[in-house]
Amino acid sequence: MIHRGDLTVATTGRGTYDVTQGVRDIVRKSRAREGLATVWIQHTSASLIVCENADPMVRRDLEAFATRLVPDGDTLFRHTDEGPDDMPAHVRTVLTQTSIGIPIVEGELALGTWQGLYLWEHRTAPHRRRVIVSVIGE
Amino acid sequence: MIHRGDLTVATTGRGTYDVTQGVRDIVRKSRAREGLATVWIQHTSASLIVCENADPMVRRDLEAFATRLVPDGDTLFRHTDEGPDDMPAHVRTVLTQTSIGIPIVEGELALGTWQGLYLWEHRTAPHRRRVIVSVIGE
Amino acid sequence: MIHRGDLTVATTGRGTYDVTQGVRDIVRKSRAREGLATVWIQHTSASLIVCENADPMVRRDLEAFATRLVPDGDTLFRHTDEGPDDMPAHVRTVLTQTSIGIPIVEGELALGTWQGLYLWEHRTAPHRRRVIVSVIGE
Repeated sequence: MIHRGDLTVATTGRGTYDVTQGVRDIVRKSRAREGLATVWIQHTSASLIVCENADPMVRRDLEAFATRLVPDGDTLFRHTDEGPDDMPAHVRTVLTQTSIGIPIVEGELALGTWQGLYLWEHRTAPHRRRVIVSVIGE
Repeated sequence: MIHRGDLTVATTGRGTYDVTQGVRDIVRKSRAREGLATVWIQHTSASLIVCENADPMVRRDLEAFATRLVPDGDTLFRHTDEGPDDMPAHVRTVLTQTSIGIPIVEGELALGTWQGLYLWEHRTAPHRRRVIVSVIGE
Repeated sequence: MIHRGDLTVATTGRGTYDVTQGVRDIVRKSRAREGLATVWIQHTSASLIVCENADPMVRRDLEAFATRLVPDGDTLFRHTDEGPDDMPAHVRTVLTQTSIGIPIVEGELALGTWQGLYLWEHRTAPHRRRVIVSVIGE
């Protein structure tokens, strides 16, 4: 059985956005008891991560790390027409995930206790981001 | 056909642990001839990688690189309550994989000659880590 | 329904190689209308990425970033027998993807407008690289 759903996330700029519940809802709607949910983001300057969901400081620190690792306006970059944060956004996307496959166990995403699924907006301006969830199950 | 298995890995601290055979055993048990095995780790401070399996020095060098890239106790980090290695562990997890999908060809994982599948423990203390393998096949 | 295809890419050395059309052809051949295409690369010194496909400068900048982040001949590395670019190639592979799962929607890969799928050769010498595409669909 194959089921598909999608999410639209209106971001307010750079940062992480919890999409766990949205993906969970699509999995429940599919009625799959066992299988796989593959989450896909249709962009190259926003990505997906699985991250600790308890202390928001973890995602603040992650953002600080990414900002230091891939600085906006780095003179290394020549693709600068779309702004100083655009090329860093592409690099951050490549270093994280565009797709994540999560097992479905007894009708639920098999997330660990502290695992949350986040859309990571890498651009500083707000964007509308599209996520597709493919459920294969029985 | 959908089949699921899991592995528990008792780590002895930071480092890589070969889970290739454990995943292979689950795939064989599934009796799938063609399909996909998706490996998932239920944690945010340990991750999955595919890495060269011939020279152990490769994984030693990988560890050295990660240690330099994301230093323990970095003053950038504010999430420090769980120790100087905790926030680096979250960052290393985000920069590697939480799920990996491997084709099944003629009943076997389609790994290249030098490909091994490793659980990467990023914490310095021992942990029990849970890995779920979802097989979709025929 | 499960279908499998593969691609061989003869690289001419370090750089990105567009495999979008090759993967698309395998999906079309499968005749799947809805499902998932999982792309897998059978190597540990070449990887897969989803990247902006409009301005080639983006991939030039990505290469420049990777070269700075993981310098060839870095004295940190001890695995040096296969050349100064070998260990950096393994690190770059671990920081990017060995597998990517892409939804199939109405018979086509659900790529966003600017998304291309690239094989990233991390070695400086030419190599023959093998990519396997697993289609699960209906």
